[in-house]
Order: sequence, then structure tokens, then C-alpha cells
Amino acid sequence: MPRKIIIDTDPGQDDAFAILLALGSPDELEVVGITAVAGNVPLARTAENAQRVVELAGRPDITVYPGCARPMVRPLFTAEYVHGDSGLDGCELPAPSRPLGSLHGVDFIIDTVMAAEPGSVTVCTLGPMTNLAMAMVKQPAIAGRLEEVVLMGGGFFEGGNTTPAAEFNIFVDPHAAHVVFTSGVPLTMVPIDCTYRAVMTPDWLRRLRAVGTRTAIQAAGMAEFYQRYGNTKFGTDDYPLHDPCVIGYLLRPELFSGRRCHVAIDLVSPLTAGMTVVDWWNVTKQAPNCLVLRDLDNPAFYALMLERLSRLP
Amino acid sequence: MPRKIIIDTDPGQDDAFAILLALGSPDELEVVGITAVAGNVPLARTAENAQRVVELAGRPDITVYPGCARPMVRPLFTAEYVHGDSGLDGCELPAPSRPLGSLHGVDFIIDTVMAAEPGSVTVCTLGPMTNLAMAMVKQPAIAGRLEEVVLMGGGFFEGGNTTPAAEFNIFVDPHAAHVVFTSGVPLTMVPIDCTYRAVMTPDWLRRLRAVGTRTAIQAAGMAEFYQRYGNTKFGTDDYPLHDPCVIGYLLRPELFSGRRCHVAIDLVSPLTAGMTVVDWWNVTKQAPNCLVLRDLDNPAFYALMLERLSRLP
Amino acid sequence: MPRKIIIDTDPGQDDAFAILLALGSPDELEVVGITAVAGNVPLARTAENAQRVVELAGRPDITVYPGCARPMVRPLFTAEYVHGDSGLDGCELPAPSRPLGSLHGVDFIIDTVMAAEPGSVTVCTLGPMTNLAMAMVKQPAIAGRLEEVVLMGGGFFEGGNTTPAAEFNIFVDPHAAHVVFTSGVPLTMVPIDCTYRAVMTPDWLRRLRAVGTRTAIQAAGMAEFYQRYGNTKFGTDDYPLHDPCVIGYLLRPELFSGRRCHVAIDLVSPLTAGMTVVDWWNVTKQAPNCLVLRDLDNPAFYALMLERLSRLP
Amino acid sequence: MPRKIIIDTDPGQDDAFAILLALGSPDELEVVGITAVAGNVPLARTAENAQRVVELAGRPDITVYPGCARPMVRPLFTAEYVHGDSGLDGCELPAPSRPLGSLHGVDFIIDTVMAAEPGSVTVCTLGPMTNLAMAMVKQPAIAGRLEEVVLMGGGFFEGGNTTPAAEFNIFVDPHAAHVVFTSGVPLTMVPIDCTYRAVMTPDWLRRLRAVGTRTAIQAAGMAEFYQRYGNTKFGTDDYPLHDPCVIGYLLRPELFSGRRCHVAIDLVSPLTAGMTVVDWWNVTKQAPNCLVLRDLDNPAFYALMLERLSRLP
Repeated sequence: MPRKIIIDTDPGQDDAFAILLALGSPDELEVVGITAVAGNVPLARTAENAQRVVELAGRPDITVYPGCARPMVRPLFTAEYVHGDSGLDGCELPAPSRPLGSLHGVDFIIDTVMAAEPGSVTVCTLGPMTNLAMAMVKQPAIAGRLEEVVLMGGGFFEGGNTTPAAEFNIFVDPHAAHVVFTSGVPLTMVPIDCTYRAVMTPDWLRRLRAVGTRTAIQAAGMAEFYQRYGNTKFGTDDYPLHDPCVIGYLLRPELFSGRRCHVAIDLVSPLTAGMTVVDWWNVTKQAPNCLVLRDLDNPAFYALMLERLSRLP
Repeated sequence: MPRKIIIDTDPGQDDAFAILLALGSPDELEVVGITAVAGNVPLARTAENAQRVVELAGRPDITVYPGCARPMVRPLFTAEYVHGDSGLDGCELPAPSRPLGSLHGVDFIIDTVMAAEPGSVTVCTLGPMTNLAMAMVKQPAIAGRLEEVVLMGGGFFEGGNTTPAAEFNIFVDPHAAHVVFTSGVPLTMVPIDCTYRAVMTPDWLRRLRAVGTRTAIQAAGMAEFYQRYGNTKFGTDDYPLHDPCVIGYLLRPELFSGRRCHVAIDLVSPLTAGMTVVDWWNVTKQAPNCLVLRDLDNPAFYALMLERLSRLP
Repeated sequence: MPRKIIIDTDPGQDDAFAILLALGSPDELEVVGITAVAGNVPLARTAENAQRVVELAGRPDITVYPGCARPMVRPLFTAEYVHGDSGLDGCELPAPSRPLGSLHGVDFIIDTVMAAEPGSVTVCTLGPMTNLAMAMVKQPAIAGRLEEVVLMGGGFFEGGNTTPAAEFNIFVDPHAAHVVFTSGVPLTMVPIDCTYRAVMTPDWLRRLRAVGTRTAIQAAGMAEFYQRYGNTKFGTDDYPLHDPCVIGYLLRPELFSGRRCHVAIDLVSPLTAGMTVVDWWNVTKQAPNCLVLRDLDNPAFYALMLERLSRLP
Repeated sequence: MPRKIIIDTDPGQDDAFAILLALGSPDELEVVGITAVAGNVPLARTAENAQRVVELAGRPDITVYPGCARPMVRPLFTAEYVHGDSGLDGCELPAPSRPLGSLHGVDFIIDTVMAAEPGSVTVCTLGPMTNLAMAMVKQPAIAGRLEEVVLMGGGFFEGGNTTPAAEFNIFVDPHAAHVVFTSGVPLTMVPIDCTYRAVMTPDWLRRLRAVGTRTAIQAAGMAEFYQRYGNTKFGTDDYPLHDPCVIGYLLRPELFSGRRCHVAIDLVSPLTAGMTVVDWWNVTKQAPNCLVLRDLDNPAFYALMLERLSRLP
């Protein structure tokens, strides 16, 4: 029986890859709903982008629930400089044919988790963790009923990608991350230390395009746009896709390696707010609250992604 | 036509006085609902306490909606050392006869404000501001649709009452206060600088009891218990009732005086987290975001409270 | 035998009054040296201003040792908007006739304290506490050898005078204040809560001028300039002289009242850095580290000051 | 003509290597004095350890000046768990034959720099930067007169070694580091990112011992003790010597590579205080204030060290 997941997302080209990877894997994963959050671009766009992606995958039956339009405490900070104004620059997808879910994303998470068997729902957060944290504050019981939370966010030995110390998803809503990291929920973190190794090569991109399906062609277009930012910054041809690692880990955990650590989120310093302080060497002697992934079998991961995306129309 | 208010509360004996004062003033105030929050005591008690108080006032028609059981970011800190284990020690009130509202307090605020005419609903917060702030994060449009927020909380020239720098309501959820104070909503703050002058005298308490109604007798019992903490701390016979000042201000603003100031909430220092940093002398040259009350005509206020409580059964 | 004091100062008109009050009281106080610090105005001016004042008092034998030109950690912040460009606007005093001491102010403090009998030297700080704290870091043994430190600085129920939360002397060098407050040295703090009650009246100023000596006339000129700032800010005719309260307390402690409290200095919040967090009600249960003065017999204090200033040439 | 350097140090076995490397290179470096500071172990031990090392090297003419026994703001934190109780566990060196310098280390730095030609003196800090920062606060003019400051401290892509975010030298006195990093002085930082690559192999250690001189044998003893901590922590046979990289860089800068960056020191977060926030990718667009070394030609470095240590008696 497939594992039930909620994808909480702010597409974003790499979010789109994560959604497509999940939808291409129905034997393993049942996407019970998608919640959208403000992050890479404002909420109105992320919600609509998520709709466009599920329809591209031929799955208009999956409802997108718009969640929070702003972080819990700080003002919203977006990243059009990476993703383009639409958040999905590089593809051409028609306007969604179906309406957004009428439930608020926060309530979709609460209602789904409270209605399901305890331990049977996993939340994957691909953007700022606002929706999940708001759900935990509104209904604290969900922390004890989730199977797991798997998040893309943070960094440690790689530092940050938005400030010298902070990665984008955590930087945008550090308070939300703090709520989740202190909730006691089973937690797996996919930081940039791992995702920077999930490098998409020009060759892989050619092979993706060569699949020839509409999904593959549009995905390739997004990937091409997306890699421009990183290629300029780092001066390389390769570029990592962050968010699909979360789904990759759910599908094939044996491709990933990491360590259980204590992770705390800085909320107070202007220099380090939003930093995930990972105690990799356990110098603080605190009990681990998170499995922190640091590496992956990248060829196997991209082979998996190619295979699964190829199944989509 | 009476002014529509939502009372957001964590009873607490002085919360009870505030509710009773509002319910004794139906010509001026229509209590459209009460939302409960964790604060003085945990949520389960504050919600039930609020129900007991509305039933004491002969108003079982007013629904109590339970809101957040914890602050937005920090762990919950309660004050049984002030209010007793029940939160309403000193009175004897039967268990509520009617159920709690099925809507979450956060959603009751959002739904009420979004359904009403813009500018027609006021929220009065008498405890940690968690419910209102959560509502503002979940649905940012409410900030522009509220008539006003009037809150009991904070302190400046009086310092704090929970830490040297912070008053209880703001200390418990400083992030929530920050969200409201930065929301642009019309805001009136009733800090301990004002409420410490709202002193209940032994004589007034005797007169309240002498009213002889059930409400008056139970209220007097609560007040007697409540004043023990302060009398021990400050070594006086008199003791202030904080929360009813909020309702007193709505009923008779001319009894209160204050100044429009910029107010910011400290979120970062272990010494001052939860402090309301009030720029009374405008040394920072920032535009005011709040009317800060500092004094009141205390005899007139207590005369008003006696009159209104006397109207209740 | 008079009590040995070092006056550490950043004149400043009210510093000048403190120096004059000490020099007019040779039976009680022996000023073994004056150390200058950057604060109200930069170091070059405060050092020369201190020299002018001792020469005005007919005491060119008292050496002024220039100390630190900047705070320990933060950049220097000065207050020409209060004291005028010279720091002593309002008087006319000739250039000093004698050179500055060749020893650095920090070393003068260390050498004096280490050479004297343990417990026989008191340091009075009238400005940022940089020199004393630097001395304590350079030579930690002095903390155990000082008789007492008496400082003008901080505020609690009055808030701050430079930011909403911080008083000038502590705001300029909060780290220095922290070093002294955590040093274990016997400590008496004269905050603005006390000094705001040390109000100089127009009548007193007339009587000072009427003394007719050169010192009295120049002091009156300084006082007149100095009160302009406060009169504008607070809209009154009266204005307090902060720094002479320190000397007044040494001369006649029975004129002052206060309480032993724990005091901590905020070093981290942009809103409250430099705040003296005074636990007046002992809610934190920490042991007191400071006698905090809060009130004084103001007529007796000003009578004392008039008498002592009248003794000077 | 050799370059004039002051070595500011808290020996520490790796400090000893740095001192020996400098003393073995008289053609390039003139050690004008050594200042000791509390760090790895308390000041009394670091000062005496420095004396023992210069006498081991046959250079009793080099005076050791004891500096600060505590950090500027925080309480002292030491590392006997790494270095042993003496700070130099692993060697056997006789008690020093000559006295410590009578000047305070802070004053030795100030006097030396102010007496020398501008731009002719370099300070190498191998421990907490307290002495140099205190000198800069006491006499700000030295920042403009130093040729360069080269420091061992900090970390970025390697994180910290004392807390998850902070390296020992900066963690012990972050305020001192802040003073130096904001002083405008020409600055080169040798963080653990560089020194973790300066790995001493078991083979090199054998070759050092085989040199057969007293210095070589004692140095080898120290190195053996020192590597135990790291070998346990990281589970390897190799172990880096941090501090001699500073001297190595002065001798052969071409063996090292790095990048000019903006570096800021966190002073406020309990999670990250003492972290060197290195903007390696220049995402903050701030002007560089530091050359940050990240790699070295390790075989060439250890070959150099072996050659130079072999020259000593």
C-alpha cells in the first residue's frame, strides 16, 4: 500500500520536479493533497503553479490547498531572482482547469492528520515550514500523529545560500522551523549539504528532453531556466535540484546517507537568523531530534527521477 | 447600535470581571463571541472558565470558542501562582451547561471579521495574543478589516510583572504581540502602567458584595482570592484589576488618558524578551503604532463597574 | 581622614558640578586623580574639560589622566546635542595651564588601587564605564581591592533617556557596564530614577549665581546651558543634575534611599541594548549585586551643593 | 631584513610548534616579543609555557609578557580536555630560567607598535584575541600602524570545533575578535577550514623525532599527546596542527590559498556566539575586511616545518 504524503510546497522549478517525481511513483506514494505556501514567490503564484504541475502530470484530481501567505513572525522574503517572476519560468503550462481547494492549507494538514490512522501520514515540506508549524500551534496533537516530516531546508558545512549562514527555506520562516524542530515529530532534514550533491548534468537534461513526453519537455525547460542562477553564481555547468531529494529519500532511502543529530534554529542574531545549527559532532551532548542527510548516490537518484518522470504523460 | 466585540481571554479572575463588565453593558457592547487561549492557566481551563462566567451572567447564548493551547513559538508558561489551580479560585461556579463552540478560536476570529462589514468588529485581548496573531498569519486580510484591537498587556515605566522587564500576557507570547503590533491594525494598549492605577479598594469590594446578586457575590469571591498575590508582593490592601480596564475604555474612553507612541516587542534578549518597548518620549522618531493608556479616573471606573455588574443576575 | 576617590568622567556640565562638589568637600573626600573617558563628547575634549574644571576650583594639583577614546566593543556615540560642541557650553574657562597626566587612565586606576591599602579606594564613574571595565579586564585583582564603585547610570522605572530603554552612560558602553556589574565589586548605582528627582530649580540657580565667586558664576552658566535640552524635551523649568548625585551620596548617604537588587545589562537586543534590567521586586530570585538608589532629599542635597560650591574660589 | 612579529599566544602544544617554527626562521622573522593570554589554559600557565618553549629553542633572550587573564566580556573558558592540565602535556621542559617581562602584554603591543615605523610590525594571534583587542581599545592608533594581523581562529564550511558554530579561539573572546575585525587593520585569518588540512601524519612525526635534537624530541612528545584528542573525536590517525599555519603563511604565503571576504563575528545568539560569519560567496555585498585562507600545500608546509625545527638545538 502506498505511503500517504502531503506535499507542502512553493513552486519553484525544483518543487515541480519533486511533485512530478512523487506523482510518477504511485506504487510507493499516495499524494493525498498539496498545500501551497508563500516562499519562492508569493502564495497566489505558488498555489497556481502547484495546480499547473499536477495538471501537467495528468492528475487534476489532486487538490491544491492554499495555505499561509506570510511567515509566522517575519515579513515575507521571496526569490524571484532565482525562479523568475512566475516562480516557474522556463515552462509553458496552461492556466489550471480546476479550482483551488476551499480549505485553508493549515486546516487541510490538521484535518487529514487527525482523521487518518495515527502514524500514517507524512508531510514533505519543500518551502518555508509555515503551514506545518501553524498547524502544530493550532492543533498540537498532530505532532504525535504524523508518521514523519521530511523537509528540504537548512545547511551546515555548506553554510547558507541566502545569507552566509542561512538557507532560503529556513531563513524565510525560522520561527516555523523552530516550532517543527522542537515538536518531537520524527524528522528528516535534507539540507543543501545533501542537495548540492544532487547535481543535474547537461547530459541528464538532454536525456530528459529526449523522453519526448509533454511532462519531460516542460520539466526540461524549467530545469534549464533554473540552472542559470547557480551556474552564474558558482561558475559551473551542473546544478543541483534541491526539492526532489525529499521525494527521492522517501522512495529509496538507501540511496541517501546521514546522521542523527541535534539541530537548533537560530532566531535571534542578525548574522545567523534562520541558520540550522547542526551538532554533527555532538559536542553539545544533546539528544538528536533529526536525521540529517548529507550525501546521496547521485547517478542512481537521477536514474530514478528519469524513470519516474518518463511514466508521466 | 452596540459595538461588536470579540473577547479573547484566559480567565483568570480579572478576565472574569472584564467579561462581566461587557455583558452588563449590552447597550454599548455586543459580545459576538468569546475565544479562549492558554495563558493564566491551560486552555482546557480557560475555555471552561469563560463558559462558567457567561453562564453566571445569565448569557449561556454566548459561545466560547477554544483557540490555541500554546504560544506561537515559545513553550507555554502559566500563572497558577497568581490565579490558583483553576484559574478562577475564589468562586464557586457550576460546570457549564452548554458545549464549547465547534469552531477553533482562530477561525472564529477570521470568519467573524471576514463576514462582517469592514471596520465593524473590535477584538479585545485579555491574555496572550496568540489567537489574534495566528488569525492574522492565517488570513492577513483581517488586519485591514478590524475596527480596533484593544489589549491588556505590557508595561513601560512600571517595568514588568513577570520578569523585571516583561508583563505576563506579552511575556507568554511575545511573537504574537509582535505580529499584532506590526500589522497596521488600529491598536490601543492598556499596560500595567494604567492598570496598576485601577486599584480595587476593600471598601469597593464590600459594596460589590453588598449588591447581593449571585454574580456580585461570586465576583467578590474571585476578587478576594485574586488580591492576595498582589497584597503579599506589594504589601498593600488595595489591588488592581487589570483586564476590565479594556472594557472600561471601550465604554467610557474619556475616563482614560494616554499617548500615541511607537511600541516594539523584544523577541531576542533573555533579559527583556516580551518587553513592550514604548517610545513615550519619541526619541526614536518612529511613527506611532499604538495608543498607550497610562492613567484613568479610577473612582469613576469602579463606579461604572459596580453599576454594570449590579445589572447582572 | 577623607575617603580616597578617583573620579572617572566625561565632562559634561553635570560632571563639572560633581567634580566641584567633590573638590569643595576636602574634609570628606580626597580626589586622588581624575580619569577622563569618551562619552558626552570625544576624549580630547572631556580630558581638557576636566582640567579646566579642576583649575576653576583652584586645584591645578589634581592630575587628569586621559583614558579610553572609545567603548570596549561598540563604536562611540556622543551627545553634543545635550552638552554643546565643547561639552561644557555655557561657561568660559581658560585653556589648562598644566599638562595631562602621562599615565593612561586605565593604568592610573590599576596602579592606584594596587598600590593602596585594600578597600581604601572608591571609583566614581560619571560617564561610560569603559576605563574601569578595561582596568578590571587588564588587572582582575582590582575588583577585590576597591572599597566601592559608585556610578551614575541606568534607569528602570524611568526607562531610558537615549533610547526608550537605555540611559546614555550605559548605552554608550554596555559591555563595560556588564564587566563591572558582574565583577563582584561593592556597587552603588545612581540611575535616572534617582537623578530625575535631583531637580535644580530656577531659584537655586539664582542663589548659586548670587554667591558671586568665579566658580559659582561659571557653574551657573553651565547649568543654564544644560537645562535647555531637558526643558525643551520635558516642557518644564526645572532640570536635574545627574552626576553630582554620586558625590552627594558619598558625602551624605542618609539623604538617599534605595534598595539592594540584582541588576543585569542587556547586550544583545537592538531594542534594549544598554538597558539596566533592575530586578526591583526580586522576581528572578537572584542575589543582589548592587545598591540601587531611587530617591533623595532634594532640598537638602541642593543646600549641600550650594554650601560646598561656595567654598571654592 | 626579517619581518618584525609579535606572537600573541596561549600555549598549547600547537602554539609551541608555531613559536618554534618562527624561532627556526630568523632570516625571515624577528620575534620582537611574545605576549601570553588566557585561553587553552589559564594565563599563569600559558605565560610560563611560552617561556619554556623559547628556552627550549635556545632563545631565552625573547621576553614573554603576560597579558590578559580573562576575556573582555565573557567569563574564561579553557580547554584542558584537549591540551592537558599543563597546556603542554606530552613534553618535559624545565622551569623557566628568566623572569617574565614586567610590562603587561597589552602595553607591550601598544608600546612596540607606537615606537616602530608605521607598517613595520605584524601581530600573530594564536589564541583568543583579547590582548590585541584590548590594545586597540586602549590605544586606537595602533590599528593604523600595524603591518598586518594574522590570526588562527574561526571556521565556516567546517563549522566550529567548540560549539557546532564556533571555533575555540573566537568562542572564548568573541568581543575581542569583533574589535579586531572591525578595526580596519590588514587582516589574514587562518580558520579551521585551512588548518584541518594541515594534517600531521604518523610518518612525519617519526621523521621529526628522528631529527634527534632536544627540540625535535620534545616537540614530538607534545604532538603525540595533542593528537589523541582529535584522533578520538574524528577516528583518524592524522591530526592537524592549527597554530603553526599562521607562521607558515608568513614564511611562504604561496603555499596557502584563500579569498578576500567580509567576516563578521556573532556576539548575540546563544547558538552561534563566537561564530565567524564568512561571506565566502559575497551574498551580502559587503566589502571584504579579511583574507580568509582555506587550503594549503600540506606536504610543502610540513617539509618546511621539519627543516626549520631541525635548525633548533
